[in-house]
Amino acid sequence: MGGGPPKDLLLCALPWPEPKAILAQIQKRFPKLAIAYVQTTTTRDFAALRKEVPESLWSKATVLCTLFTFPQNPSDVPDLELVHLTSAGSNQMQNQPLYTDTDVTITTSSGIHGPQIAEWVIMTGLVSSHKYKQLYELQKQRKWGKQGSEQTDFHKVRDQVGRRLGVLGYGSIGRQVGRVAKALGMEVVAYTATPKDTAEKKKDRGFIVPGTGDVDGEIPVEWYSGLDKASRLNFLKQDLDWLVVSVPLTEQTRHFLSTEEFEALSDGGRRPAFVTNIARGPIIDQDALIKALDDGTLLGAALDVTDPEPLPADSPLWEKENVIVTPHISGVGESYTERTFKVLEENLVRREKGEKLINVVNRKRGY
Amino acid sequence: MGGGPPKDLLLCALPWPEPKAILAQIQKRFPKLAIAYVQTTTTRDFAALRKEVPESLWSKATVLCTLFTFPQNPSDVPDLELVHLTSAGSNQMQNQPLYTDTDVTITTSSGIHGPQIAEWVIMTGLVSSHKYKQLYELQKQRKWGKQGSEQTDFHKVRDQVGRRLGVLGYGSIGRQVGRVAKALGMEVVAYTATPKDTAEKKKDRGFIVPGTGDVDGEIPVEWYSGLDKASRLNFLKQDLDWLVVSVPLTEQTRHFLSTEEFEALSDGGRRPAFVTNIARGPIIDQDALIKALDDGTLLGAALDVTDPEPLPADSPLWEKENVIVTPHISGVGESYTERTFKVLEENLVRREKGEKLINVVNRKRGY
Repeated sequence: MGGGPPKDLLLCALPWPEPKAILAQIQKRFPKLAIAYVQTTTTRDFAALRKEVPESLWSKATVLCTLFTFPQNPSDVPDLELVHLTSAGSNQMQNQPLYTDTDVTITTSSGIHGPQIAEWVIMTGLVSSHKYKQLYELQKQRKWGKQGSEQTDFHKVRDQVGRRLGVLGYGSIGRQVGRVAKALGMEVVAYTATPKDTAEKKKDRGFIVPGTGDVDGEIPVEWYSGLDKASRLNFLKQDLDWLVVSVPLTEQTRHFLSTEEFEALSDGGRRPAFVTNIARGPIIDQDALIKALDDGTLLGAALDVTDPEPLPADSPLWEKENVIVTPHISGVGESYTERTFKVLEENLVRREKGEKLINVVNRKRGY
Repeated sequence: MGGGPPKDLLLCALPWPEPKAILAQIQKRFPKLAIAYVQTTTTRDFAALRKEVPESLWSKATVLCTLFTFPQNPSDVPDLELVHLTSAGSNQMQNQPLYTDTDVTITTSSGIHGPQIAEWVIMTGLVSSHKYKQLYELQKQRKWGKQGSEQTDFHKVRDQVGRRLGVLGYGSIGRQVGRVAKALGMEVVAYTATPKDTAEKKKDRGFIVPGTGDVDGEIPVEWYSGLDKASRLNFLKQDLDWLVVSVPLTEQTRHFLSTEEFEALSDGGRRPAFVTNIARGPIIDQDALIKALDDGTLLGAALDVTDPEPLPADSPLWEKENVIVTPHISGVGESYTERTFKVLEENLVRREKGEKLINVVNRKRGY
């Protein structure tokens, strides 16, 4: 990097306490990097949030690591070269001038959520298929349930061997879900926006937690693609028992799944499938989902995201026996901070070497 | 097989309705085999059960497919050559004269339970680590839980990546648990009674549900063995985060795990581990387990089997937050009957060809 005074400032504006050990490690690796950490409040009021960061930091920042805190105008951050988001997607900043009016490189933490969210997906899928809620209620009553009891059907389980899992969005999370599903004995059918018709295109080029995922895209037995409706319906008609939604939310994927799609998925209700959404609520037309659950077109659903969030207390989704609702926590965990800074660190290394960064947002694609 | 009148009678004495399609398939493959099906009651009164089968069937049976129904004396079944048990183990018949006083070949359904029980193991492990009970209670209250709320800690999740799973009994069930755990990013440490120090010995020679298990024993990063206490303690000291108990119950494995073992497992309480038992209740000294859960030596437990069963309503296990109790159902499911008859069919083919059968019980070993 040569001589001269250090001009590189990593500004972290995040709603959790300073991860000192992690920052110390980055400092050790980049002795000339200045690091400032601002613990913001947890509001999502963007105007209020940006004021929690002093102007003097905005004006000098070259790298910004954040979740919901952005400068008001690009001119406030004249030296900014890189924004690292601690989220998997970039929806929260797509209306920001920094996104719409500049070419500042934006990277996400896509890839770090794979293992934990995949665990949530597998857990809730099994909780549903093994009827764990009934088993738990029996435990609370201190009852050793009898098979064949009229009040329960926890014994009516069929394991996942030979079943077909459709992964709508075969990205880092979808790949780890696929990896575990295959280990369970399932057939994995992948869907991606663009065709993956060569071994090269099938590769995952983002951050991958070691020992997880499907780096070469070798797990799926079939692979479908195409953002148009016909392509989508074609994928959904592949005799899927379970559909996991893990596409990013873009204008093209808003209400990507509605009545017509649920009909296709379940072959007109003859083969009701289970639907899991760990992406974003608005990807599913929620009224259509409720209807499909009510009329038996769908077997059930596991939803970590809803539309809107929080899910209103009067939503019928809360009390359906075959629906699991959790408050957008599938990716929240103790290894989160550690892993998001691993991505940033990897990119600081690449930036120093002049190499291509990982997890860069393509503004045209929207993720 | 040559000419002569058919003398082969497959007698099925099972507590569920006749699986006609499955038996028709066996009949088609073995046109000369006579097949008799007796649906027994679900009592475990062996004396009552054996009377539910007519003497004329006992006297002619060459193959018996059963769960709890056995002849009183070997002399009642003069032509019997093979007993196929629909259970994974043979404990229920180890006091029967047919077991103690004869050399009639006994086969089990070991291997068919792998996928479903492994799903139960993974599900309950994740239910515990993701604190699903709290998430479910929030759903019942129609509450969108907040991270950091004092009443809950469902956000304090750490995924299984890099964690170490010990499989005490790396048989068909343990292997499938290992397969899924590896897909989750875990390190699998295997334990078997006898040393598996060659590639040949590491192989699984029993029935394997296609697409599951670990046929070549390639998944474990380390492998321990030995029925003596020192060997057992050595295995338990390998920094395990999660111990899955899947050894058969024999006189040697009764109370295999007690206070000393839990101390070793958790490094004297410094590294509390989670314990899962899907084998048999008496393998664990249950009073020692309760004590270890109470004093923090263990992190929690998932128990599909207890000692005794049913677990008495006044057992403290029922209401511990960190304990999951289910009524010995982890292997009960819709593919059970289909798969147990697949093992029998495979053995009828091998018997006809004069080949070595699979899943034969070794009376000395006890499984």
